[in-house]
Amino acid sequence: MQSGLRSKLLEAFSNAEGGFVSGQKLSEYIGCSRTAVWKHIEDLRKDGYELEAVRRLGYRITKKPNKISDNEIKIGLKTMKMGHHVHFEETVSSTQKIAQTLANEGAEEGTIVVAEQQTNGRGRMARQWYSPSGTGIWMSLIIRPNIAVQAAPQLTLLTAVAIVQAIEEITPLKPDIKWPNDILINGKKLVGILTELQAEADRVHSIIIGTGINVNQSISDFPEELHHVATSIHLETDKQWDRAQLIQEILLKFENLYSLYLAQGFRPIKLLWEGYAVSLQKPITARTINGTVVGKAIGINDAGVLLIQTSDGSVKQIYSADIELQ
Amino acid sequence: MQSGLRSKLLEAFSNAEGGFVSGQKLSEYIGCSRTAVWKHIEDLRKDGYELEAVRRLGYRITKKPNKISDNEIKIGLKTMKMGHHVHFEETVSSTQKIAQTLANEGAEEGTIVVAEQQTNGRGRMARQWYSPSGTGIWMSLIIRPNIAVQAAPQLTLLTAVAIVQAIEEITPLKPDIKWPNDILINGKKLVGILTELQAEADRVHSIIIGTGINVNQSISDFPEELHHVATSIHLETDKQWDRAQLIQEILLKFENLYSLYLAQGFRPIKLLWEGYAVSLQKPITARTINGTVVGKAIGINDAGVLLIQTSDGSVKQIYSADIELQ
Repeated sequence: MQSGLRSKLLEAFSNAEGGFVSGQKLSEYIGCSRTAVWKHIEDLRKDGYELEAVRRLGYRITKKPNKISDNEIKIGLKTMKMGHHVHFEETVSSTQKIAQTLANEGAEEGTIVVAEQQTNGRGRMARQWYSPSGTGIWMSLIIRPNIAVQAAPQLTLLTAVAIVQAIEEITPLKPDIKWPNDILINGKKLVGILTELQAEADRVHSIIIGTGINVNQSISDFPEELHHVATSIHLETDKQWDRAQLIQEILLKFENLYSLYLAQGFRPIKLLWEGYAVSLQKPITARTINGTVVGKAIGINDAGVLLIQTSDGSVKQIYSADIELQ
Repeated sequence: MQSGLRSKLLEAFSNAEGGFVSGQKLSEYIGCSRTAVWKHIEDLRKDGYELEAVRRLGYRITKKPNKISDNEIKIGLKTMKMGHHVHFEETVSSTQKIAQTLANEGAEEGTIVVAEQQTNGRGRMARQWYSPSGTGIWMSLIIRPNIAVQAAPQLTLLTAVAIVQAIEEITPLKPDIKWPNDILINGKKLVGILTELQAEADRVHSIIIGTGINVNQSISDFPEELHHVATSIHLETDKQWDRAQLIQEILLKFENLYSLYLAQGFRPIKLLWEGYAVSLQKPITARTINGTVVGKAIGINDAGVLLIQTSDGSVKQIYSADIELQ
């Protein structure tokens, strides 16, 4: 099936919001014969869609395949800009790498790179991010804000808020944020965020925000050594979740927060972030390149830098560290 | 001539510090016959070296060609690390672009890219930098400091200090620094600095510092429209200058300041920078993306951000702007 016709067909079902659409209506909407409509519906079935056909009422989709594709992301997407260009691949080494190349070639703000599988998914500090096929959201988003380099780390915090809001919107979970870039459920890692940038000293060229979200993994999908540190939305809710829908919700929440940020600065984002932050007002250990800082996390400053009050009362600014809650 | 033999030969002359070196000594030093030495000396002459040959004393170099090459930069270089890897090309589109590729491929800290000519030299904000052949220093330096992204713009200011110190060491000129990245003589642009970085939100991968230095241009080497805004060291001193020697001095000054910076932070660099800054304590106009700020430049803060006091007494932080002195 031509992808244009398929999009129109899925769009027609999407507009009906789960209800029936008659063959006549479908044939008018996509501009082809009723026989052709029937063929396209068979193609959808082959691709994993389940459809109900009822005489006089027409067709309705009862189950979408749990796959991500350009179409699945675009149809029903409510954003103005984010996700309007989708670069989808089945298997990539890392979505960040592809997004970087696209950004260098001038890709528009809002372009996303999504894959079903990453063979070399990266986390912060060149660490691995385990990204098995068809289970999670492995996505990189390109943005081009007119901000100073000094402000770029704020975007990691903004993204964390957007993802928590989207998860709360769609699932019953209430995740926590751990500075700077992890989202946890019951202390286990659910989401990692990797923000990378290319910039001049006083002008950001592009920021690429990579997210790894564990959605439908069962315990056997994680290697043994991750069992006590990682979890998935499925493991916490005992349900399978529609990843494309989650992507749409994340893009929408991100776009709203990003508009707010560009208009009013980091202050409102900071307040939202602090509401989700698990590491605040607790004793923590921060391991930095220059040594370990032990104290109480008292907040973040307007630059997104973590503030730790040590036992002598002084406040240390932490730009980069691994945080351990005590 | 093999470049290894040529290096040895030039090294022998360099060790003699302008004095004579006997054919016997040269033949021992580079490990070949006296006839071969004579041949290599003829090759040097063809490449633009002027040599004096005196019976019983041997040879001495009376004039080096005003060319830049791997050898010219390396021989006599006094740094520990900066400039030890030289990527030289006659003509490039932009040394920054090549340095970025090298950095992505893992080039070591201290690697420099130098060209005799840039066909598409870039300044700040994607502006052109006029870089005609054989007249200036078009160079990009790769460094990999363990610093936060927020600190990266400080490296532009550090580089400006290094270049001013090098110019003062070698020439009689006393240049001024104009925030953030220009070096001026009598209000005309002598040097431009372009700092670019690739980073994670909390970790710098590489910083590439590009410098365009107008050295030996005469007035006819500048296009008409630059006559009132640009100058060269030659135009200000009426002499031709050895560009390779200037590069060596810049690398040395940079290395010293960079070590100081990594050990003690930005504070000592800030003090040096303020001593050269022409824009401080004067009424200035700063044109930013978000509008124009008029006031008195009162200094830079510890992040390298320019502070302007406006007429109502408030202090504005300027991250990025074009500055006009009044």
